[in-house]
Amino acid sequence: MTGGGPAATGGAPAGLDPRRFADLFATLAPIGRDPATGGYLRPPWSTVDLRCREWFTGQAQARGLRVETDRNGNLWAWYGDPGTGGAVVTGSHLDSVPQGGGYDGPLGIVSAFLALDLLAEHGRVPVRPVGVVAFTEEEGSRFGVACLGSRLLTGTIEPDRAAGLRDADGTTLARAMRAAGHPPDGLGPEPDRLRGIDAFVELHVEQGRALVRPVGVASAIWPHGRYRLDFTGTANHAGTTAMSERQDPMLTLAYTVLAANKAARLRDARATVGRVAVVPNATNAIAAQVTAWLDARAPSTSELNELVATIGAKARERAERDGTRVALQHESVSARTDFDTGLRDRIAALLGGAPVLPTGAGHDAGVLAAHVPTAMLFVRNPTGVSHAPAEHATDADAARGVDALAEVLAELACRA
Amino acid sequence: MTGGGPAATGGAPAGLDPRRFADLFATLAPIGRDPATGGYLRPPWSTVDLRCREWFTGQAQARGLRVETDRNGNLWAWYGDPGTGGAVVTGSHLDSVPQGGGYDGPLGIVSAFLALDLLAEHGRVPVRPVGVVAFTEEEGSRFGVACLGSRLLTGTIEPDRAAGLRDADGTTLARAMRAAGHPPDGLGPEPDRLRGIDAFVELHVEQGRALVRPVGVASAIWPHGRYRLDFTGTANHAGTTAMSERQDPMLTLAYTVLAANKAARLRDARATVGRVAVVPNATNAIAAQVTAWLDARAPSTSELNELVATIGAKARERAERDGTRVALQHESVSARTDFDTGLRDRIAALLGGAPVLPTGAGHDAGVLAAHVPTAMLFVRNPTGVSHAPAEHATDADAARGVDALAEVLAELACRA
Repeated sequence: MTGGGPAATGGAPAGLDPRRFADLFATLAPIGRDPATGGYLRPPWSTVDLRCREWFTGQAQARGLRVETDRNGNLWAWYGDPGTGGAVVTGSHLDSVPQGGGYDGPLGIVSAFLALDLLAEHGRVPVRPVGVVAFTEEEGSRFGVACLGSRLLTGTIEPDRAAGLRDADGTTLARAMRAAGHPPDGLGPEPDRLRGIDAFVELHVEQGRALVRPVGVASAIWPHGRYRLDFTGTANHAGTTAMSERQDPMLTLAYTVLAANKAARLRDARATVGRVAVVPNATNAIAAQVTAWLDARAPSTSELNELVATIGAKARERAERDGTRVALQHESVSARTDFDTGLRDRIAALLGGAPVLPTGAGHDAGVLAAHVPTAMLFVRNPTGVSHAPAEHATDADAARGVDALAEVLAELACRA
Repeated sequence: MTGGGPAATGGAPAGLDPRRFADLFATLAPIGRDPATGGYLRPPWSTVDLRCREWFTGQAQARGLRVETDRNGNLWAWYGDPGTGGAVVTGSHLDSVPQGGGYDGPLGIVSAFLALDLLAEHGRVPVRPVGVVAFTEEEGSRFGVACLGSRLLTGTIEPDRAAGLRDADGTTLARAMRAAGHPPDGLGPEPDRLRGIDAFVELHVEQGRALVRPVGVASAIWPHGRYRLDFTGTANHAGTTAMSERQDPMLTLAYTVLAANKAARLRDARATVGRVAVVPNATNAIAAQVTAWLDARAPSTSELNELVATIGAKARERAERDGTRVALQHESVSARTDFDTGLRDRIAALLGGAPVLPTGAGHDAGVLAAHVPTAMLFVRNPTGVSHAPAEHATDADAARGVDALAEVLAELACRA
């Protein structure tokens, strides 16, 4: 690749033909797609996940890369010998949220293989080991902890706690891994593996509409918290209980949902209730208990804490009026992640002054960033939709993403 | 029994010893009780239901009654030959809502057997057939249609529709009945059976706190509607979608729940959202769709319609603001049921001027009332809680209920 590559000049002859992106993406696209909705169902360690892993292995082997699964179930494909250290790694994840889009995760992996192809075609030979990684359970949609594979690798979750995490059917991670032919006995941090990596670059589809050019560079990941709100009232008969004699937790939930929305609107922040469980959940019974999960994000930890404190106060105020009780529990809260400034600025300059923007979404790159110099590339998403079938990147934009990633790999791995 | 019986005089020597009620109730109480909560799980045609039916058959046979299951799965125990016509029937149901109380239904059946015992002990010999009935799926908690057994018997639901009703696991009523050893081939109305019944009296635990004396008589059942509200928005990422770019159906639901509560409070009516389903129901995804079920009741059909129209209008107003859509569907709406005035007044007088009160709850007696002169007795509920473990009747009040039912049966069946 030339120094002023295709991403910088927007259509130089060296750029990837968008049809090549479309062709490779199409080999992965049918796996786990719900024909009724077009959404994806790729929970980790499911049969569908194993088919995605086979696809990864096939693509790696076709390129002469050596494939290994680490002790935590993350998949790696290596050019060169990672044992020598100083590796440059790119990649993302293959799992999806239920009914998610096809780009969140897979775009980074398909782009990684194509970027290696571009390097080879342009005679750029890496002088360091280069890896493509597919982290497991990035979404946290099966076992409830996001970035589970990268957290295990970096030691930011206890192996025993991870092994005992249960899915909605009560199956533990340990049992699911064993059933998928991957014994969970070695779960836990791999500091040697991390020490052997000099840089990690994750390419990802943008998940809002903040990016107006085909490719951008991440500045930071916002602090992000998941909170559980238990609203407890008194189960009773919907027909015979006078309105004035009720302790109905559904009312407290409803008020809190609206209060959370208002509190986030009044700040530069986000608050969402997208998951609710009702007991007993019968048409003719006033609920005994309603549990809601609050997802909240803000530019800084102090703003996040203030947002959640406001929502909690509103919920308690209303609970008093409804005769119900509310308990607010922090399930997971992650601090703001600033990506490596040097790497970020070097990449932005390399890509001809690509836009630099923060994101509200968590990523494996955010977990890695505390251990390895890390950067992220974003590819434009015209719908702004993510975690749903309408999530999209055009083939042309995706090809520009591949160009940019190839340029970054050439810069980081092919110069001595 | 004497003419001025124990219920009328409150403690005459002929009254049932409360310990006799407690002893018989205790033989049924353990079946289907969740030891963790004290709530009952007695869905129709389940293993637990079959054990309740065995209990019924055993009690009937111990009293020399002939037991039959009708074509719709309702259980009958007969004193005398119902083929001669002019029967007096009492009874209720054995099924429960999930985590329901132990009295709703069973109280009427336990009381029926004890009332027959009292008649025998007092030498009152019926001159007509007397039946004890246990209707199936009164709660509608498994197949979604309340009073299913009495509706099938009276022809107020199409047999084919009933056979095809599905539970939460997708099992049809037909399949569940067949699996329980009761072929569903004969589902449908039994007009001859109804013609042979001169009066039906259901004893039931009161489900609010409207009854201040141990026993009361029902005047009417309020009109009752079940409605389905589908709120449709756009699934999206909870972290990356700006608050201003959302179409979040959870907000529309929340506003509607509060609006329904307010609309019912402003009238002499009831409105409840106790059942909610969210798609995809993930913490980090803005919901694509939220479905809520509205239970509404009011003294008259016009008041009910006005209540539901108000709630629907509020939901649509808010949907416009949220960029979502709302569809309101009537799942079932029943008219007001006035019980047979002659029978009601005769019973109230017989019981020494027992209080006469309406109820917001549906009952098999309400379905029967259009076909057979029907009355209801209520037994006081000190907690006012129903459809939950705290539902209660004291042994002393239950014994007064048995006295009253025995007196009514003596009046209706033992006089020529």
